[in-house]
Amino acid sequence: MNPITIITKKRDQQILTTEEIAFIAQGAATGTIPDYQLAAWLMAVYINGLTDQETADLTRAMAESGDRVDLSGLPTPWADKHSTGGVGDKTTIVLLPILAACGLTVVKMSGPGLGKTGGTIDKLASIPGFRTDLTPEQMKAQANHIGIALTGQTPSLAPADKTLYALRDVTATVPCLPLIVSSILSKKIAGGADHVTLDVKCGSGAFMETPAEARRLADALTKVGTAAGLKIRTAVTDMDQPLGRTAGNALEIKEAIRILQGQETGRFRDLCIHLAQITLENCGILADPAFAIDSGAALMKMRQWVTAQGGHPRFSITKSGNPHPTFTKSFTTMNPVGSNQLTPKSSASKSLNSAVDENPKVTPSITPSASKPSSK
Amino acid sequence: MNPITIITKKRDQQILTTEEIAFIAQGAATGTIPDYQLAAWLMAVYINGLTDQETADLTRAMAESGDRVDLSGLPTPWADKHSTGGVGDKTTIVLLPILAACGLTVVKMSGPGLGKTGGTIDKLASIPGFRTDLTPEQMKAQANHIGIALTGQTPSLAPADKTLYALRDVTATVPCLPLIVSSILSKKIAGGADHVTLDVKCGSGAFMETPAEARRLADALTKVGTAAGLKIRTAVTDMDQPLGRTAGNALEIKEAIRILQGQETGRFRDLCIHLAQITLENCGILADPAFAIDSGAALMKMRQWVTAQGGHPRFSITKSGNPHPTFTKSFTTMNPVGSNQLTPKSSASKSLNSAVDENPKVTPSITPSASKPSSK
Repeated sequence: MNPITIITKKRDQQILTTEEIAFIAQGAATGTIPDYQLAAWLMAVYINGLTDQETADLTRAMAESGDRVDLSGLPTPWADKHSTGGVGDKTTIVLLPILAACGLTVVKMSGPGLGKTGGTIDKLASIPGFRTDLTPEQMKAQANHIGIALTGQTPSLAPADKTLYALRDVTATVPCLPLIVSSILSKKIAGGADHVTLDVKCGSGAFMETPAEARRLADALTKVGTAAGLKIRTAVTDMDQPLGRTAGNALEIKEAIRILQGQETGRFRDLCIHLAQITLENCGILADPAFAIDSGAALMKMRQWVTAQGGHPRFSITKSGNPHPTFTKSFTTMNPVGSNQLTPKSSASKSLNSAVDENPKVTPSITPSASKPSSK
Repeated sequence: MNPITIITKKRDQQILTTEEIAFIAQGAATGTIPDYQLAAWLMAVYINGLTDQETADLTRAMAESGDRVDLSGLPTPWADKHSTGGVGDKTTIVLLPILAACGLTVVKMSGPGLGKTGGTIDKLASIPGFRTDLTPEQMKAQANHIGIALTGQTPSLAPADKTLYALRDVTATVPCLPLIVSSILSKKIAGGADHVTLDVKCGSGAFMETPAEARRLADALTKVGTAAGLKIRTAVTDMDQPLGRTAGNALEIKEAIRILQGQETGRFRDLCIHLAQITLENCGILADPAFAIDSGAALMKMRQWVTAQGGHPRFSITKSGNPHPTFTKSFTTMNPVGSNQLTPKSSASKSLNSAVDENPKVTPSITPSASKPSSK
């Protein structure tokens, strides 16, 4: 098979076979197809599109291009969640503890932020000591133990997507529906996902700026994801203004905790509860996400989660801890000596911090250990 | 200026400014824009096209991206000739001596063969000792002396085209009218051309397979070339069957000499005379190309030319020399020791030879020096 033939077909609006798409994905994963040929192919795909069948083929081929996480053995059902990203979107950090508190096993591999949207992994890295580099085995063991685990994507997961994603960013081929769909879903499949809730952001703070665009993406995700064997639920949610009160990694962690403490009401809490509801429905579980918050069960899961992933012991999460803790420079990279465990794991978090936060670290709450987990 | 912005504009069918196109050409020439971005841009251009103005801008920008040959001081008018290439197309080798015999100064820089079409430079390299690597200064001195010079393109001539040309070959963006036009004309301009005759081949042995395609290319060459200050004449000529009797570098050199010896009639001779006529008209010269052949004047120019460029003394061109000289292995690369001056200068000729010819070298005619140049 020859990359030029495949580029030519797509250039001329022909439909590629499953084998041709697999050849491109394998070539991207292994480096046997050079970047310039992948770039020409991406532009041809951008302009001429991919059919649903081609998109499903690309999704599967990218998922199969590297390691795959096998979650079998974990308590079912397993839930995963993905947001297309928006300013101030800290939904995952609230949603995962709620779902785990409701009895789901939530396992998520999370990518770094893209463009104007921050990444969950960057936000969590602002918790002193929090590890975002769990191996698949560690992730699985933790999920088995406490029902919740989140880690950064390993390079061996969907390496074809990794290559194409990086190329799209520099070849003006990012906002392309079939490429977005296959990129999102291939990582979910490779990460072992089963039931997936997809939150498609819509508005000036998101990549999809109009409701029609967002609806098209949600429909394509559902169609292609279902064809690939996933149980998909989608929600199109507003991103015309930042989600919640804050934008910035450390600030958003604090806000997420305040939601779980039951100290916030409004649009962001409502969104978290809505997404939890459709996820629970999708998994066939009857539970009340609002009660998981109000009872303190979700906050307890958050504590377990942060502790399990190495969150610094001084970063205590209390039922009513200081909602607006003061900031200090003491954990910034300006003073890294002797405080290695407190610096962010993700280098991406640093640049996002510097762009949005003035102070990249949440100060540990001074409340010593007054946590009183709910006994729901 | 940012390559991604320029790629995005072309992707979205917008028209690029002169400065944006110059930025792409400079980036291609200097390597500051990576191949994958140029590849994405080329595919966007392939699918969405360039306007005549954009094509003229690209032509000028590529011509200005490196060294330029200055022919001022040579006897005027200067003529150059280009063929879009076809199987068995040895027209240049016949046409240049005819034009020089008619009083024009013919200076040509010639590229290697592309795809199924052989390059003039490869054909000439099959003459033992023939140099295809004249410097611009050597080329100019020779043209001043005998009215004719041909050399391979130096890497410093239109380096932007060199980069884009190589990329087009591997990204399925070769058959694209504005890219073909700007590639051809930028090299003519950088090579110092003034009056240019463009032979657009049409048929199954050429890149333009239908008369309509070939006519479109001829029209675009005329329009863009005129806008760039060249005096252009075009001819659309048939390439549904190989031109002349032979295909293969050494065989074609022999056939070209037979035409100049006046020993051949038919379609190929007619084409050479037609192209010579329109070139002479374009330059405002009243002369009869057929008489240049019949009188022996063109053959004499050929002898002068081959000798001036280092053609081996044993490669003698006679008025009636053996039209079918036998072949021998003695000049092949199988026996290179002590015969360095007899091996081809161009490595491209070797592969083309091996693909088409069985014997890559023309045997020197055994007629000692019976040449009797006509005294027209």
